[in-house]
Amino acid sequence: MPEPIRAPFTHRLRVYWEDTDAGGVVFYANYLRFFERARTEWLRALGFAQQDLLQRENVLFVVADTAVRYLRPARLDDLLDVSVDLREAGRAALTLVQQACRDGALLAEATIRIGCVAPGTFRPRRIPTTILERIG
Amino acid sequence: MPEPIRAPFTHRLRVYWEDTDAGGVVFYANYLRFFERARTEWLRALGFAQQDLLQRENVLFVVADTAVRYLRPARLDDLLDVSVDLREAGRAALTLVQQACRDGALLAEATIRIGCVAPGTFRPRRIPTTILERIG
Amino acid sequence: MPEPIRAPFTHRLRVYWEDTDAGGVVFYANYLRFFERARTEWLRALGFAQQDLLQRENVLFVVADTAVRYLRPARLDDLLDVSVDLREAGRAALTLVQQACRDGALLAEATIRIGCVAPGTFRPRRIPTTILERIG
Amino acid sequence: MPEPIRAPFTHRLRVYWEDTDAGGVVFYANYLRFFERARTEWLRALGFAQQDLLQRENVLFVVADTAVRYLRPARLDDLLDVSVDLREAGRAALTLVQQACRDGALLAEATIRIGCVAPGTFRPRRIPTTILERIG
Repeated sequence: MPEPIRAPFTHRLRVYWEDTDAGGVVFYANYLRFFERARTEWLRALGFAQQDLLQRENVLFVVADTAVRYLRPARLDDLLDVSVDLREAGRAALTLVQQACRDGALLAEATIRIGCVAPGTFRPRRIPTTILERIG
Repeated sequence: MPEPIRAPFTHRLRVYWEDTDAGGVVFYANYLRFFERARTEWLRALGFAQQDLLQRENVLFVVADTAVRYLRPARLDDLLDVSVDLREAGRAALTLVQQACRDGALLAEATIRIGCVAPGTFRPRRIPTTILERIG
Repeated sequence: MPEPIRAPFTHRLRVYWEDTDAGGVVFYANYLRFFERARTEWLRALGFAQQDLLQRENVLFVVADTAVRYLRPARLDDLLDVSVDLREAGRAALTLVQQACRDGALLAEATIRIGCVAPGTFRPRRIPTTILERIG
Repeated sequence: MPEPIRAPFTHRLRVYWEDTDAGGVVFYANYLRFFERARTEWLRALGFAQQDLLQRENVLFVVADTAVRYLRPARLDDLLDVSVDLREAGRAALTLVQQACRDGALLAEATIRIGCVAPGTFRPRRIPTTILERIG
């Protein structure tokens, strides 16, 4: 079974009713929301809010690929630590490994590739160097 | 207890895992989604798809007010009939009564006011007469 | 136009991509999620986590009625302050007024009635006195 | 670029406002909802509603692994055909390939592994033979 990794960035969030399903646990699709909140806060911590990316840099990061493994269920009231670990930075795409943990136990793990595109057309764009320099 | 009304338009939909919460029933906020699907299909049946409203008429309908009563829970696999009944058509807003029923039993009832606005600015706009004529 | 009220409890949250729709603003149904997160944190601050309510008190609070007015749109990256103000505490139901504000400007306002029920059957239950004493 | 496959089962669905995000397209996490609706309808077509699985067979299918590639965006009003193609049936897990297409163009493709578990404990269970016989 995979282990939690020591990631450079972690975002803590709470599980609410809206996140659960009739199985009594977090609906699996909602982990993608948790992973995205962590990526958004990671970029914000580096100085890039989503609106800035759109307005100042005229780019949008879109999800190109996700691979998620679900290991243990999360439940109502759980506090989750969702990490972001940059694995690869290409010219137009980033690959990140993300984990959702509860008290140090790994619940779900994802490899997510996000591509840089132009808003509206969704055509690939080079990642602005200001961003590449910061995340490097 | 309120009764189902005989509404001029009804949209049928299925309850899936995504719609439920850890209480084992449909998460109450999701009825707003069900009501909106029915409104969207009602407008489509009258000849107005959402993209057409945006591109051809340059208007957007936004929800201004909702009042919802929750009477009985819906569960996984349920087939719901969601109705649309226009109650009032003003110059810039419509008021609709909507119900979600299962086998003729009323589960939730809403009064919803939607306003016509300009995309982007969200400033009030007159409802295009082509729409008012059709829904009248 | 209604004004923000000075509420005894406020929960701060961030708007993410998951909360928005193609109109470029927060999807109106998602305010119900924001209001619920605030209610959940309000109960937690009073000593009642949702799992405790289920397991220790054997009750569940379900939403019986919602009335929401949408005044101004929220956008990506916005920080919202969502308040909880108890207006009435009956034997089996609570009525709360909740507001979502950004920088002191009121975006949406709700009156929400939640009922206390037995898990599974959803039959009305008296609100446990331990809860009534705390929230009084 | 991958091609649409001729799948034995397809479920058609409509894109609504609730499915979109501020980028103007379907929020990528929502494809998991679309894929699940198709799986649910596939099982129902084989005679297994979700409530039956829970009550009659005392099993629950939970998602263990998802790998999704996003190729082209879907937009408001789009009609999507979401397919289900069983690739492997083990003793306690099924592997499915699923595609979301619009007018024959592939928008997103997923490989999803679902495991059979006991409700409540989420411990692995053998897939009931009545199910294995039907899906074979």
